[in-house]
Amino acid sequence: MLNSALIHQLRAIVGDRYFRDDKEALIAHSYDGTPMLQALPDGVVYPENTGQVAEIMKLLAACKVPLVSRGSGSNLCGGTVPVEGGVVMVMHRMNRILEIDQENLTAVVQPGVITAEFIEHIESFGLFYPPDPGSMRISTIGGNIAECSGGLRGLKYGTTKDYVIGLEAVLANGVIIRTGGKLMKDVAGYDLTKLLIGSEGTLAIITEATLKLVPPPKSKKTMLAMYRDLYGAARTVSRIIESRIIPATLEFMDNPTIRVVDDFAKLGLPLDMEAILLIEQDGDPETVERDIERIRQICELEQADRVEVAATREEAEKLLTARRSAFTALARLRPTTILEDATVPRSKIADMVLRINEIARKHNVTIATFGHAGDGNLHPTATTDARDHEEIERVERAFEDIFEAAIELGGTITGEHGVGLVKAPYLEWKVGTAGIELMKGIKRAFDPDNLLNPGKMFAKETRKRVVIDHG
Amino acid sequence: MLNSALIHQLRAIVGDRYFRDDKEALIAHSYDGTPMLQALPDGVVYPENTGQVAEIMKLLAACKVPLVSRGSGSNLCGGTVPVEGGVVMVMHRMNRILEIDQENLTAVVQPGVITAEFIEHIESFGLFYPPDPGSMRISTIGGNIAECSGGLRGLKYGTTKDYVIGLEAVLANGVIIRTGGKLMKDVAGYDLTKLLIGSEGTLAIITEATLKLVPPPKSKKTMLAMYRDLYGAARTVSRIIESRIIPATLEFMDNPTIRVVDDFAKLGLPLDMEAILLIEQDGDPETVERDIERIRQICELEQADRVEVAATREEAEKLLTARRSAFTALARLRPTTILEDATVPRSKIADMVLRINEIARKHNVTIATFGHAGDGNLHPTATTDARDHEEIERVERAFEDIFEAAIELGGTITGEHGVGLVKAPYLEWKVGTAGIELMKGIKRAFDPDNLLNPGKMFAKETRKRVVIDHG
Repeated sequence: MLNSALIHQLRAIVGDRYFRDDKEALIAHSYDGTPMLQALPDGVVYPENTGQVAEIMKLLAACKVPLVSRGSGSNLCGGTVPVEGGVVMVMHRMNRILEIDQENLTAVVQPGVITAEFIEHIESFGLFYPPDPGSMRISTIGGNIAECSGGLRGLKYGTTKDYVIGLEAVLANGVIIRTGGKLMKDVAGYDLTKLLIGSEGTLAIITEATLKLVPPPKSKKTMLAMYRDLYGAARTVSRIIESRIIPATLEFMDNPTIRVVDDFAKLGLPLDMEAILLIEQDGDPETVERDIERIRQICELEQADRVEVAATREEAEKLLTARRSAFTALARLRPTTILEDATVPRSKIADMVLRINEIARKHNVTIATFGHAGDGNLHPTATTDARDHEEIERVERAFEDIFEAAIELGGTITGEHGVGLVKAPYLEWKVGTAGIELMKGIKRAFDPDNLLNPGKMFAKETRKRVVIDHG
Repeated sequence: MLNSALIHQLRAIVGDRYFRDDKEALIAHSYDGTPMLQALPDGVVYPENTGQVAEIMKLLAACKVPLVSRGSGSNLCGGTVPVEGGVVMVMHRMNRILEIDQENLTAVVQPGVITAEFIEHIESFGLFYPPDPGSMRISTIGGNIAECSGGLRGLKYGTTKDYVIGLEAVLANGVIIRTGGKLMKDVAGYDLTKLLIGSEGTLAIITEATLKLVPPPKSKKTMLAMYRDLYGAARTVSRIIESRIIPATLEFMDNPTIRVVDDFAKLGLPLDMEAILLIEQDGDPETVERDIERIRQICELEQADRVEVAATREEAEKLLTARRSAFTALARLRPTTILEDATVPRSKIADMVLRINEIARKHNVTIATFGHAGDGNLHPTATTDARDHEEIERVERAFEDIFEAAIELGGTITGEHGVGLVKAPYLEWKVGTAGIELMKGIKRAFDPDNLLNPGKMFAKETRKRVVIDHG
C-alpha cells in the first residue's frame, strides 16, 4: 500500500489522470504475456517525459518503494509482473519518434514507440531496422531493449543489442544518465549501453534510445523445405552455413507444430513430415537468386521431400504464414500455452529437438517445437491447462530437463526472452555462482536499495540440477 | 618490490624461466605503444594456461599485489603501463588457436594469438574475421578484446565487440568464469561478455575467447577520390551513406597527411588537395560494381578533382598504401608522434577537421589528421618532441581542446584506442559524474581491492573543462 502523501506527490508530478490505484488499473498491470503469473501493484503511473520519470524515482527512492517499468508487457519471462508490489510505470505516453537522421542513419525514439510502427515509419524513409520479435505489433522498443529481443531476421542481422548505440536512462536514485550517442564507435569506459540492453528493467529506466538503421535489402526470396528425416533438416541448416551463406531467415517447425499449424491455417502442409524449414534470403537480386538456388540444391542433397520457392510476394506471404501462425495455432489447442526459449549452438539443433521429444515423453506432456534454427534458438512450446496442477508440475519438470539439456549441449536457458521471474532459478546453471555474484554486484552498483524490478533475474534459491535419465 | 617468498611461489607456478625480475625484463615491460609513458613493474610473469593464471591471481590477491595483463602492448592509451608497479602478466605463451568450428562459424582462441596470424589462418579455411586494427601484425586478439579494437573495415563490419561471443576469464580473486558461448543469442543475465570487451584489463584477465566468423566477401574494389574542398570530401561521405551504400572502408586523409605520405611512399599524390578519400567496397561482384560506380558519381557530383578506381589488385594495393603508411610517414617527421582518437557522428567530420586545424593553429602545434571517415573516427596526429617540455605542454592543451570539440559535436574522447592512462582525466566529460560512479561500482564488483590494472580508466582528478576560444 502506498501512503496517501506519496500518492499525492505522484499525482502532483504526472497529473491526476496519470496516476491510478483503482482496482481495474491494478489488475490490468498485475500480469504480462507470461502464463500463470500475477501480482498486484500498489499503483500505476504514466509519465510523459524523462523529467517526470526522474522526479518519480527520486520520490520512490526516498520512500524505498519498488518500481517496475514496462511497455506493453508482452514479455514471456514474467519480466514485468510486480512481484514485490510497489508502482508500475507504463511508458506508453513516451511514444514519440524524436528524430530520423538520414546522414548518420540513426533514429532517436522514446521507449513507448510500438516496434512495428517504428519499423513501418522508417521503411517509409527507405531505411531498415531488423529486430522483429514475434510480438512486434504490440511490443515497444523500450521493452525490446529491456529484453534484448530477437526475431526472425536475427540470423543475418543480429538482435536488438546490435542496433542500440545510445541510451538515456533514469537511475534508481532519479539521476539521468546518457550513454553512447550517434557514434559507430565509442570505447570511453565500460560499455553501459550494452549492459543496459537486456537488463530487464533491473538497472535503470530507459527513457530514450538512439538506434542504428541500415540500408534495406533490395530484394527477397522465400522458400519452404519439408523433410521426413529430422536430421536431414538439421544437416541442411549446418550445410547452408558451412557453404558460407547466411540467410536472412532460417526457421524450423517440427511435426507436432506442422499438424497444428495446418489445422489452423489450412495451408495444405504434408502432415507426415518430421520437419519444415522456412528459408528467406535478401540482398541484391543476383545474390538472392544465387543463394536460393544453392540452398535449394542443399535441401535436395539432404533428401528434402518437397522444396517450394515462392514465385511471388503473395506466395511468399503464404509460406511465411505457416511459421508466423505457429504460436497462435498452438495456443488454440488447450487453455494454457507455455513458450520456452532454450538455445544451443546451431550444430546441435537436431540433438536438442530429439532431447525435447524424449523429455516430453518422459513427463507425459505435449510439447511442439519451432524456432530460429539458424540461431539454434528453439521455442519448445507446451500446451497444457493451468488449472491442472499435477500436469503443470510435469510441464515444469519437463522444462527443467530441457534447460539442463540445452546447457549440456553448450547452450543457454534463454536466447531472446530473458530471465525475469521464470528462469531466475536456473540462471546459475548457465553463468555459475561467480557469474551470479558479479551480476549482483553490478545490480548493487546501479540500484543499491533493490528498487528497480525487484525479484527478477536473481532467484532466492537456485534450482538443484538433477541428472537427466536418458534411459 | 615483491618479497622473496612471493617470487618463490610465482616461480613454482610457472617455472623459473617464466618469472623474471631482471632489469632487462622490467624495462622491456615498463612502456607500451604510447609515447612518453613509463613505469617499472616489480616482476614479469608468462603463464602457460588458465590454471596458472588463476593460481597467480590467488597468490597476488592474498598479498594485494597489482597485476597488469598484456599482449604485445601496442595500445596507444598507456593501457599496459604498470603505473602502480606490481606484476606484468604477458599472455604470449597462451597463443594457440584451439578450434575452428565450420558448422557454427566460430573459432576458439587463446588471448596471445597475433591478430594478423589468426586472420590468415581462418582465411585459409575460406572464412573471415573483420576486425583489422592498424597494429594487427603485432597486436594480440586478447589485446584487441581489452581495447575493443576497430580498424579499416569497421564501417561495414563493426569492431571487436561484434565478433566476441564468449569468454573465459580469471577474476582478481583467481576464480575462473565463462561467459556466452558458441551461441548467436544468449540473454541469460547481464551481458558480461560485452562488458569485458573494452574493459582494458581492469575487470578480469581474458584467458580464452570464442569468436564469431563470417563468410568472406567474394570480391572487392578500391578507389581514391581527391578534393580541393574539405567539405566536398565530407559531403561525399554523408552522400554515400545517405544513398544507402555502406562501403567496407571509407578513409580520410587531410592535406598535411597527404604531403607527408607522398614524401614517404612516393605515390605521386597531388599535394594541393585538401582531402583524399580511400573507398573500398566488397561483396558479390555485381553489387561491388554497382556501388563503386554510384560512389564514383557521388564523388564527381561533390567536385572531386580526381577519382581513381583500381583496375587490378596491385593498383588497389598501391592506393591502400597511401592510407596504411600515414602513421609511419608521420612518425618519421619528428622524434615523438602522438596519435589521438576523437570520434564524432559521421555528419560532423568536416566540422571536426576544421576545429582540429583551428586548435592546432591556436596552440602553434603541427597536427595532421587521417582516419575512418565513415565511422567519424578521426586520428589527429601531432608530430612533436618529447624533450621539448614547452611544446609538449602546448600539444597536450591542443588535444584537450580537441576532446572538448569532439564532445561538443556529439562525439566521444575515444573511438577505438581506449581510455587507459592518457584519457582517464577526460572520461567524465563524456560519461558524466553518474557514469563514472556506475563504472567505479562495476569495477568494485569485479575487483574490490583494485588489483587489476590499477590507475587506468579512472583518474584521480578529472580535468577541468575550459571554454574553447573559437575567435
